[in-house]
Amino acid sequence: MVTIPGPIDPPPRLLMGPGPISAYPSVLRAMSAPLVGQYDPFMTAAMAETQELYRGVWATSNAATLLVDGTSRAGIEAAMVSLIRPGDRVLVPVFGRFGHLLAEIAERAMAEVHTIETDWGQVFPPSVIEEAIVRVKPALLGLVQGDTSTTMNQPLDEIGAICSRHGVLFYSDATASLGGNDFEADAWGLDAATAGLQKCLGGPSGSSPITLSERAVAVIESRKKIEAGIREPGDPASPDFVRSNYFDLGMILDYWGPRRLNHHTEATSMLYAARECARIILLEGRDAVIERHRVAGAAMLAGVEALGLVVFGDVAHKMSNVVAVEIPEGVPGDIARAALLDDFGIEIGTSFGPLHGRVWRIGTMGYNARKDAVLTTLAALETVLARFGVAVPAGGGVDAATGVYAEAP
Amino acid sequence: MVTIPGPIDPPPRLLMGPGPISAYPSVLRAMSAPLVGQYDPFMTAAMAETQELYRGVWATSNAATLLVDGTSRAGIEAAMVSLIRPGDRVLVPVFGRFGHLLAEIAERAMAEVHTIETDWGQVFPPSVIEEAIVRVKPALLGLVQGDTSTTMNQPLDEIGAICSRHGVLFYSDATASLGGNDFEADAWGLDAATAGLQKCLGGPSGSSPITLSERAVAVIESRKKIEAGIREPGDPASPDFVRSNYFDLGMILDYWGPRRLNHHTEATSMLYAARECARIILLEGRDAVIERHRVAGAAMLAGVEALGLVVFGDVAHKMSNVVAVEIPEGVPGDIARAALLDDFGIEIGTSFGPLHGRVWRIGTMGYNARKDAVLTTLAALETVLARFGVAVPAGGGVDAATGVYAEAP
Repeated sequence: MVTIPGPIDPPPRLLMGPGPISAYPSVLRAMSAPLVGQYDPFMTAAMAETQELYRGVWATSNAATLLVDGTSRAGIEAAMVSLIRPGDRVLVPVFGRFGHLLAEIAERAMAEVHTIETDWGQVFPPSVIEEAIVRVKPALLGLVQGDTSTTMNQPLDEIGAICSRHGVLFYSDATASLGGNDFEADAWGLDAATAGLQKCLGGPSGSSPITLSERAVAVIESRKKIEAGIREPGDPASPDFVRSNYFDLGMILDYWGPRRLNHHTEATSMLYAARECARIILLEGRDAVIERHRVAGAAMLAGVEALGLVVFGDVAHKMSNVVAVEIPEGVPGDIARAALLDDFGIEIGTSFGPLHGRVWRIGTMGYNARKDAVLTTLAALETVLARFGVAVPAGGGVDAATGVYAEAP
Repeated sequence: MVTIPGPIDPPPRLLMGPGPISAYPSVLRAMSAPLVGQYDPFMTAAMAETQELYRGVWATSNAATLLVDGTSRAGIEAAMVSLIRPGDRVLVPVFGRFGHLLAEIAERAMAEVHTIETDWGQVFPPSVIEEAIVRVKPALLGLVQGDTSTTMNQPLDEIGAICSRHGVLFYSDATASLGGNDFEADAWGLDAATAGLQKCLGGPSGSSPITLSERAVAVIESRKKIEAGIREPGDPASPDFVRSNYFDLGMILDYWGPRRLNHHTEATSMLYAARECARIILLEGRDAVIERHRVAGAAMLAGVEALGLVVFGDVAHKMSNVVAVEIPEGVPGDIARAALLDDFGIEIGTSFGPLHGRVWRIGTMGYNARKDAVLTTLAALETVLARFGVAVPAGGGVDAATGVYAEAP
């Protein structure tokens, strides 16, 4: 016999890790709105509103701005399998775990994958990327903007022009960065970009915003194949079709487009969540939200430095919304994190690969890019560090962060 | 400038189509619960609870019972791409649109796809499926249980034994049927089965329950390849890897399993929804819920017949939770549906392919497998039919349905 548990009743948590983070309360409320049918005029209007809102978030006029129904890596895979033909050369500059992920997805899409690597904690100068493009001659460049595994924020502003010069499609994964750092899809010449809700956008994982340039859409359209079950005479059925049905952006675009051709059944509650994430960001103002992240990140950085913690990586290229600090000598990293969670209800993160057990990652993003969240975390962290014998200046982290807030415009 | 709309505020709808349908209120409430971190002990416990609850829903003891983060076709694609090796022969008996979908997904997974077809409105006798298996010698049989496009419910109870006799993996898509019709994963010898929340389970689209037999897991494990970014020395990296990262069930199983190896970030709010769907079904009792669907379906069937509508297909093999009726001569199908929606807030469905414009599909599923929902729909339908000049017996549909409820045990 199955023991039937009670209704879901999560403990209170202040999520100050690298994501997921605590969602905006209005996003949680949006998900409890009643469902409507997938072709209800209200639903198609909500889909169109969501597209327009994300054009604002991505800073784009791309018609093909929509959601992929899945977590952030669903968006990554949809972009890559739809744009990459088997055998295509793909270049992935790797500066952390998510560069490896892009390379792996490209490999599974049967691309000829070329990577360049830099040390974790660094980013690539545009010239190094251009040199690799000249050498590899890829069909597509896949470049993570913010790699949470290292906290680095790869500058993208010059990359689109480089790609354009060499006839390369430019795709970026902005999951960890979008909404908390500048991102200019059109001005920077992106052909495709994807994200997730669970970082700076302040929602739950499970919906992946994506935007595609006209050039990207042309590639996708050239490979289009409409399902046999709903295909009409004259509908395309390219032999060069995408090797996934779920991630075939040609069909997903038809579902979101004027023809509203059935593909999946849109994840209505996640659409409501995604719409609300974008809505409240644009209500506050996209630039104001990015600035709020900048200040919260600067305050947390000042705070952890004042506690004597050593910051990992190239701070000049850090994302605003997350900082990695070396775990002090003698402190058991996971036990200290558990103490923060159990005694204060505050979550901070560990890391992956070469940084596992070496750094903690502390986030200030979305709803939690807030002064009270920053100060509370610093106060609790000070207590836990002291408990493990680290010499910390009493109130030092909170004072330093308060100072940053006092000076913020 | 983007015009920023207000918070999501859907109109009241009674969703009596083929799905999505109105979610249980407690499922909507579950989704507004606060988020926790993906490795929070509360989260991993909620994942384990959800697995155990779905073992009850599927009637299985399969350890590999979990969720795929996406809509129901995400579950289908995960099952098929993880079980099918490129070049494998796959047999798909097609009796509606979703058979075509399974064939299409198998084709994109580079299988050698063989189909057998029967007329829409019919199901296959097991002997016909066995003959095809003997002829084709497939590695996998992909068989829809309930195809909403035709309302048919393919009997599966003898198919597992047939597959076992011939060494064929047996996969079924139970999206439209699970929870409203009998399904016995273990007793019927299923190797893989997938579903979605938006039909009889009474939740929103966006999470796909899946269960896998030990035999299926062995195939998946033999193809395992752990991502470069988190791979440890000695971890598997099979050259026969699955051509999708997102749908590689080997990695998804590691995320849900004791090693908790990071893959995607679990869609927390959808997990809460999926957990609640299964929880309230088991609280009411799985058999009681199936019986509730049986009675609601019988009442709706009696009602539409009493209104003089002609039921489509082999009624003896209809799913409990949906009925298709021919649109009466002279009634503009889509205009009549719009009248039901606009004047009564009730949605019924159209259909696909050869049935488009020929039948309406009326559902009685999940939360809406209820007497008041059935009677309200029949009363409104009578009014709309009369408005378009159809001779309907006053109160006839409601009376017939009430009679079925009066006789129900």
